[in-house]
Amino acid sequence: MILPEPTIRRLPWYLSYVRMLDNLHVEYVSSTQISKELNVQSSQIAKDLSFLNIRGKTRIGYEVKSLITELEDFLAFNRQHDAVVIGTGSLGTALMQDHGLENYGLNIVAGFDVRPEVIGEQLEGLPVYHISQLAQWHQEHQQVSIAILTVPVENAQETADMVIASGMTALWNFTPYRIKAPEHVVIANTSIYAHLAIIYNRMHNSNNDSRQD
Amino acid sequence: MILPEPTIRRLPWYLSYVRMLDNLHVEYVSSTQISKELNVQSSQIAKDLSFLNIRGKTRIGYEVKSLITELEDFLAFNRQHDAVVIGTGSLGTALMQDHGLENYGLNIVAGFDVRPEVIGEQLEGLPVYHISQLAQWHQEHQQVSIAILTVPVENAQETADMVIASGMTALWNFTPYRIKAPEHVVIANTSIYAHLAIIYNRMHNSNNDSRQD
Repeated sequence: MILPEPTIRRLPWYLSYVRMLDNLHVEYVSSTQISKELNVQSSQIAKDLSFLNIRGKTRIGYEVKSLITELEDFLAFNRQHDAVVIGTGSLGTALMQDHGLENYGLNIVAGFDVRPEVIGEQLEGLPVYHISQLAQWHQEHQQVSIAILTVPVENAQETADMVIASGMTALWNFTPYRIKAPEHVVIANTSIYAHLAIIYNRMHNSNNDSRQD
Repeated sequence: MILPEPTIRRLPWYLSYVRMLDNLHVEYVSSTQISKELNVQSSQIAKDLSFLNIRGKTRIGYEVKSLITELEDFLAFNRQHDAVVIGTGSLGTALMQDHGLENYGLNIVAGFDVRPEVIGEQLEGLPVYHISQLAQWHQEHQQVSIAILTVPVENAQETADMVIASGMTALWNFTPYRIKAPEHVVIANTSIYAHLAIIYNRMHNSNNDSRQD
């Protein structure tokens, strides 16, 4: 099911909150309680959760453990998704060593780069190959469909083109470049620099009435 | 000037594109050209750029070098903003070593944590202090107003409360937790895990007509 994006963005908030409740051995939670804690309207929460196979019980609310399982299932965080990092600079290496991603179903298996000093080496225990080997490598590792793009911005489009030509179908773009890709390719832009721009803009102005995610 | 968020999100795309043109010694660019390259309507581009002190010339377009300067000024990427990393785990350390951030005006000066093995040590050449020292430290470093929150999700709110109590006014939240904060505090959520959820959702379904940033 293709969910509305705002809903998908809120589901991980609910998940992190109920995981925390579970750690505290809380068994049930109401949408009113989630609403108060996360600052989302409770009617919205009920609507978001209606996409899942779970219903709250009158006066008791949602069972915490079931909610966790349903959310993890639904978000596919409990399935393994293999990925490669394209561009093993500081951000790329950082993601390769961020074991937190594994808890969200992301399994990075290799890196690709063009710098002679890293090709053939191991980074964070993972092999690094030359980008020109990507198409061949993907033939032999067809289960890997996510490429994490952390190359310099001026190489973003050409590198994305190589990734797509290799047959990978999902691009997690950390560059500030707006990648062009065929319709069948999934692209998510994590616009770190855009978030900085928003922070600066709000800081340099007194009125902070707009929050963003 | 408080800009609409979608505009702020697009401005870094324009900047990265015109920086690339500048590298190629291109002197002028039209909104039609930017539009074609970045897949944004040219009327939208003209509207976005109208917030800046720059006007395109008929038939010639925008001067690339002026556009870069205006965008950098406007986005405050050419001003230094001092920040601390709260939670020097893998993601926190990664950000401390990501020198790319400096090109966008972010200068990380210290880390804070609670783990005895890192307190008093240097990470990526930066000192790491105990979180209990934050309020005192901030008294002596009042120019630092941005805290980058990379703690475990279950500590997100309590840590944010400490940051806000210390007097810092901007929180860049990398946890999937929805932080509650007073109105005057600027919060930007970089929801890495939400982006993963969106990738998975689109991958596990055939129809990818929705793109996100």
